[in-house]
Amino acid sequence: MQPSGRITGLTGGGSDGWDVFLKARRMIAEGVKVTELTIGEHDIRTAAPILQEMHRAALAGHTGYAAVPGTASLRDAVARRVAERTGVPTSRDNVLITPGGQAALFAAHMAACDPGDIALYIDPYYATYPGTLRGAGAVPQVIRTRAEDAFQPRADDLRAYSKGARSLLVNSPNNPTGVVYSDATLGGIAEVCRTDDLWLISDEVYDTQVWEGRHLSPRALPGMAERTLVVGSMSKSHAMTGSRCGWIVGPEAVIAHLVTLATHTTYGVPGFIQDASLFALSQGRDFEAEIAAPFRRRRAIAQRVLGGQNTVGLIPAQGAMYLMLDIRATGMTGEAFAYDLLEHEHIAVMPGESFGAAAAGHLRVAMTIADDAFENALRRLCAHAEKHAAR
Amino acid sequence: MQPSGRITGLTGGGSDGWDVFLKARRMIAEGVKVTELTIGEHDIRTAAPILQEMHRAALAGHTGYAAVPGTASLRDAVARRVAERTGVPTSRDNVLITPGGQAALFAAHMAACDPGDIALYIDPYYATYPGTLRGAGAVPQVIRTRAEDAFQPRADDLRAYSKGARSLLVNSPNNPTGVVYSDATLGGIAEVCRTDDLWLISDEVYDTQVWEGRHLSPRALPGMAERTLVVGSMSKSHAMTGSRCGWIVGPEAVIAHLVTLATHTTYGVPGFIQDASLFALSQGRDFEAEIAAPFRRRRAIAQRVLGGQNTVGLIPAQGAMYLMLDIRATGMTGEAFAYDLLEHEHIAVMPGESFGAAAAGHLRVAMTIADDAFENALRRLCAHAEKHAAR
Repeated sequence: MQPSGRITGLTGGGSDGWDVFLKARRMIAEGVKVTELTIGEHDIRTAAPILQEMHRAALAGHTGYAAVPGTASLRDAVARRVAERTGVPTSRDNVLITPGGQAALFAAHMAACDPGDIALYIDPYYATYPGTLRGAGAVPQVIRTRAEDAFQPRADDLRAYSKGARSLLVNSPNNPTGVVYSDATLGGIAEVCRTDDLWLISDEVYDTQVWEGRHLSPRALPGMAERTLVVGSMSKSHAMTGSRCGWIVGPEAVIAHLVTLATHTTYGVPGFIQDASLFALSQGRDFEAEIAAPFRRRRAIAQRVLGGQNTVGLIPAQGAMYLMLDIRATGMTGEAFAYDLLEHEHIAVMPGESFGAAAAGHLRVAMTIADDAFENALRRLCAHAEKHAAR
Repeated sequence: MQPSGRITGLTGGGSDGWDVFLKARRMIAEGVKVTELTIGEHDIRTAAPILQEMHRAALAGHTGYAAVPGTASLRDAVARRVAERTGVPTSRDNVLITPGGQAALFAAHMAACDPGDIALYIDPYYATYPGTLRGAGAVPQVIRTRAEDAFQPRADDLRAYSKGARSLLVNSPNNPTGVVYSDATLGGIAEVCRTDDLWLISDEVYDTQVWEGRHLSPRALPGMAERTLVVGSMSKSHAMTGSRCGWIVGPEAVIAHLVTLATHTTYGVPGFIQDASLFALSQGRDFEAEIAAPFRRRRAIAQRVLGGQNTVGLIPAQGAMYLMLDIRATGMTGEAFAYDLLEHEHIAVMPGESFGAAAAGHLRVAMTIADDAFENALRRLCAHAEKHAAR
């Protein structure tokens, strides 16, 4: 019995780029001590007071069906947070609570695209992006960026594909590059969206992790609030990856339709998780800075370590919990280098190629281990690169 | 900026049949005391030991990303439960954990149908069914049943639409009718699926609420394991509606593709909720019987009350937390009667028409209030019907 072509073709065939990661996991299972710098998971757990609040809400009886759009109080809190940080008037009716950021990305594309519509995204990209677009029935079209531009998309490159497309997905602060899009980059993106009548889907789940410059939400640019769907989440900002609580912020009319979609695809988010998320948001910016602090420290460590050598290049590390390293001086592909590093140094990093062709010859390093171990791993990575470059 | 046609057309236009429900909610907001027999939510909360286990798991650190297919232990537990109750060999690889039964219904149709495929479903139906099929891009085709058959579908009626269709969605024990499909009915369904090469999507979320006869999972019928996707959930069986934890059981190859789909649409279910669900399942059949007991009692009350009069007919109440009442002797539509009952008696029930044309002239009554109040409401409903029938 054959499943649908949509589901069998979701990944577009070929390797999904997680081979190095899976090999590292196998080595660990066999007892090898591997330093993992692969996935975007904090090295801390969700804070106990947030979990206590979840338990309080559950014991108090918030265990039945929650309102599908989200609880009024959480929608209000998200709306207030967005309005404060962007200056764009935002109310409860602009917010849908979703079971995580990935569900928000999918729902946003379901709302923007009909089957067969062209949906644009930027290379390098977070691993699920093309499959998410395909899952919504859209035809993914990639826009390649350049290492020499620090992977910031050029408006001219967008224009080559924007006519006749329906949506554009962007992500700043960016996974996998750690780059924060400049005001000029975002201005160019907004102009293309307005000119060619595109929906802009703006994944801003790393908005609290900015080390340099500022995070500008493109929804705040002229004429963009009516055509932008912002994806947010508790995962990265509050170390609540496993709670699966995210949101979409967009025009009221689209949010109303997205509530109908949610009624038919998820039927809401647990009320006790929403209450815990509300409590977490109420802790304010100091708490968010505390959650982001380890990555800020490790980024400084990386700047210091990488500043002391010339073989491994660092793409400007402006935000998010990742570094993008340029190892082209070794003459190796990212994949070959990552395999070699895993084999000889027992350090696991992601090949840039896992995130698209634009990041070939690069590595993504997640800053998700203790500072000392992180510094040590970076030094060994550089030494390994120097050895290859000297050959 | 226009959203997609898919999302704006999700409900197929027209009333969604919840007008009486919404009017009741407005009356309550205005201070009127309304007896609500409308939605399928237990009148108890999730049991405290389940919530304690959730808290224990969260504090123990199960707050990061859980494995997308579900935790190995919960998948094993669901597989064991299904194997024990159906006799069909079932392993972890046959199980995907989903964020609730509604997400499982949607994902199952995404796996079975490509855009434009015809997806069959049975009238009367649970409110989200046609929109769920549309959300997956399928073209919903309804199969009407008859009150005189207690709304059990006839194989001949299925055959009128099964050629060229891709899937058939059934639900036994049934919402909204309270009917449990007979072995003969399920045998006919299975034969049509085999003959015309249909996926069978079997919504079995009420499988622990059977008052008469037995629940037969059609996956256990000859040749059906390879073409059946069973939807299950913790919601109804364990009074965990708000925890949003469900599953799909199906062939290994399709589950593998569904894991890929989940990676792109939900990214898994909170680990602490899965641990709580595992604990709840480990409480065994006695606990499930305890959760079902109030509905069993109220169904007996209904049989007694309705046995003492001749105006309101009771569709054989064999399972689930609902009664389907035939009020055609009043000469009124279900909708007119429901409005009249709400206005004069302050009792809210769902018009049969909310669940499709086949249930016209009927009412769905949720058995979700305390026994005394339930008996009283039923008596007043009957008296109200008799008044109209006598006119």
